[in-house]
Amino acid sequence: MNLLYNGKAKQIFATDNPDNVIVYYKDDASAYNGIKRAQITNKGVLNNKISSIIYKYLEENGIKTHFISRVDDRNQLCLRKEVIIPIEFITRNIAAGTMARRLGLEVGTKFDTPIYEYCYKNEELGDPLINQHHAVALKLSNYDELSKINALMNKINNLLITLFEKIDIILVDFKIEFGYLPDGSLVLSDELSPDTCRLWDINTHESLDRDRFRRDLGRVAEAYEIILNRLTSLSI
Amino acid sequence: MNLLYNGKAKQIFATDNPDNVIVYYKDDASAYNGIKRAQITNKGVLNNKISSIIYKYLEENGIKTHFISRVDDRNQLCLRKEVIIPIEFITRNIAAGTMARRLGLEVGTKFDTPIYEYCYKNEELGDPLINQHHAVALKLSNYDELSKINALMNKINNLLITLFEKIDIILVDFKIEFGYLPDGSLVLSDELSPDTCRLWDINTHESLDRDRFRRDLGRVAEAYEIILNRLTSLSI
Repeated sequence: MNLLYNGKAKQIFATDNPDNVIVYYKDDASAYNGIKRAQITNKGVLNNKISSIIYKYLEENGIKTHFISRVDDRNQLCLRKEVIIPIEFITRNIAAGTMARRLGLEVGTKFDTPIYEYCYKNEELGDPLINQHHAVALKLSNYDELSKINALMNKINNLLITLFEKIDIILVDFKIEFGYLPDGSLVLSDELSPDTCRLWDINTHESLDRDRFRRDLGRVAEAYEIILNRLTSLSI
Repeated sequence: MNLLYNGKAKQIFATDNPDNVIVYYKDDASAYNGIKRAQITNKGVLNNKISSIIYKYLEENGIKTHFISRVDDRNQLCLRKEVIIPIEFITRNIAAGTMARRLGLEVGTKFDTPIYEYCYKNEELGDPLINQHHAVALKLSNYDELSKINALMNKINNLLITLFEKIDIILVDFKIEFGYLPDGSLVLSDELSPDTCRLWDINTHESLDRDRFRRDLGRVAEAYEIILNRLTSLSI
């Protein structure tokens, strides 16, 4: 297959249909803007399955995504995007990570209203935090598009909170990306998995996400597997 | 007089009238979150005079401020604020300073639309950049108040661009603060001077502001004096 893109955690391949691509989930883990790297056996399989379940759920609830179907353990069939907006869209319900440190907040502080953040996808600059005015001035987006995406972030957050509550998981925060199909429609792209969401067990508040890798907590794949098993039990 | 507040560049004293305060302008200069400090002879006098002219101009153009009158070389009579919003409101028309570095922009890049930034006034945390959602989650402000202030930032920016254009100065960026009077009205507080604005000569693009101190360019007070002289020639 013709490799179109080789990312940190995924590869994208062309297919015979110019509107579709194959997304291959690797076992490569990375953190701190690529400084920390490792292989986590089976992570790609787990994230592919988790993200497929979540995207199917979002589609069923009216969110347009690039997801078509899961092909096998490591591959998804997705719609090809003509454009990817070079912004990471982050939603935070509870303080954690760098944001808690930057703002002097205790990890675990629950916000009355979600915090939406934009980060400029630019590895050289360390994906810096920006606001809507930077995004427009840098010509990464425009005010109309950001307003549409803000509404989508809010809707997706509510849908995900509901989904994860059903499996006794607290959705702390998550990162999403958006792109445009060749026909001009805006779709949720990338993935939603323990690599891109902070997920805590509702009872123990144990991290069941990439923080296990970031902070050397061990049992990374085991945590991802807990998320997959709970989601699978739900969807049966 | 009873000292109410001792800041980096100004002191605030109580007066017999509980609604009024005296703001005293010091010669103390500081940069990089207080790491670099010095005395610049006459800076307080220059900033007091410059800020008085600018606040008078803004008042005449419909902006409510805390400014009443300039008392003498170093003192202003101002309205006492009951509350100061703990946010620095920054407006940027042209890329400069830390923002240009953070976003990989060439200093001097002109934006099609102004960039409005909020910084959380918290010296311990280094006054971190935040957005409207952080401001609300941290209970520093609320969405209604921020929407009112955004409109004011835009209006003040346009008024200042017009003012400075008349004296052959490019308004690169500036920082303002807002507070509430005891009667609940929102007013522009703090100061507007070469300490809080980046001001470039329209022909030479020479910095006539605090960057001369930050970057050891020399002739700091002389630059501030150019701004004062040009503003004075205008107001006569």
